[in-house]
Amino acid sequence: MTGKQETYMQEALKQAKLAFGKDEVPVGAVIVHNNTIIGRAHNQTKMLKDPTAHAEMIAVTQAAAHLKNERLQDCDAYVTIEPCPMCAGAMILARIRNLYYSTEDPKSGACGTVLNVAEERKLNHCVKTHSGILKEESRSLIREFFKKKRTNARSKITFRIS
Amino acid sequence: MTGKQETYMQEALKQAKLAFGKDEVPVGAVIVHNNTIIGRAHNQTKMLKDPTAHAEMIAVTQAAAHLKNERLQDCDAYVTIEPCPMCAGAMILARIRNLYYSTEDPKSGACGTVLNVAEERKLNHCVKTHSGILKEESRSLIREFFKKKRTNARSKITFRIS
Repeated sequence: MTGKQETYMQEALKQAKLAFGKDEVPVGAVIVHNNTIIGRAHNQTKMLKDPTAHAEMIAVTQAAAHLKNERLQDCDAYVTIEPCPMCAGAMILARIRNLYYSTEDPKSGACGTVLNVAEERKLNHCVKTHSGILKEESRSLIREFFKKKRTNARSKITFRIS
Repeated sequence: MTGKQETYMQEALKQAKLAFGKDEVPVGAVIVHNNTIIGRAHNQTKMLKDPTAHAEMIAVTQAAAHLKNERLQDCDAYVTIEPCPMCAGAMILARIRNLYYSTEDPKSGACGTVLNVAEERKLNHCVKTHSGILKEESRSLIREFFKKKRTNARSKITFRIS
């Protein structure tokens, strides 16, 4: 892991924290081209009521608009949680070079955990995948989010019963 | 195949023809809820310079906006060509009930041809997939598109050489 990679993942983590603050599942993503961040987003599915509004999707759209090109050649993606099949598929279509993600998603991770769409050799592009940068920070954030959700759910049940 | 299913696929095919007319890869999609089309779109990746702007993605976003809900429960999708991993993933996230597609995509079809993301039982939702409605019409359209592309490419080469 290089210092630059950690810096980019810190930026993705800042985005994830923004999502946390809006009660969205805390996932953040950045897209980097020639040492410059050209896409930076957090998950917004609840606020936008749009299942496609994952952090990675918004960051890819931003980066393509920046480059005025639907192919993000020589671009790398930094994501706090392992992308799902939709987001891994978007990275293939965008020709993302390297994907760095912090921590695994045991339920829908499509970059090596549940499936490996990102590196599927039968498709016409393979996204080189790396994991583990700032793993503990990203994992703590997502755990804290779901712990809070469970606590809130229990409080509501107690309130209804009492 | 019911008459209604053919009618919805005809609507998807109209969208694909719109894409063809704009020099976009001719793919169309509609989303149906309670016998009503609530999402209707064609591929716009070239025009928008956005790799995520597939017909299915735009139709899912439209349908979610219509229902004001990120879950498209009891909704069915009709697509002229087998969805790619990104679009199959979006349908899982949206909880699409049934996916009907016309013709296979031998290069990136993720609903049974190259991969089967849509019906992957390790993920938290399974999109029941059916194929073959208006298959010849959809296949002819995509073949005509790529034939035209090849002819144009050859004309350019001839022009440069002559």
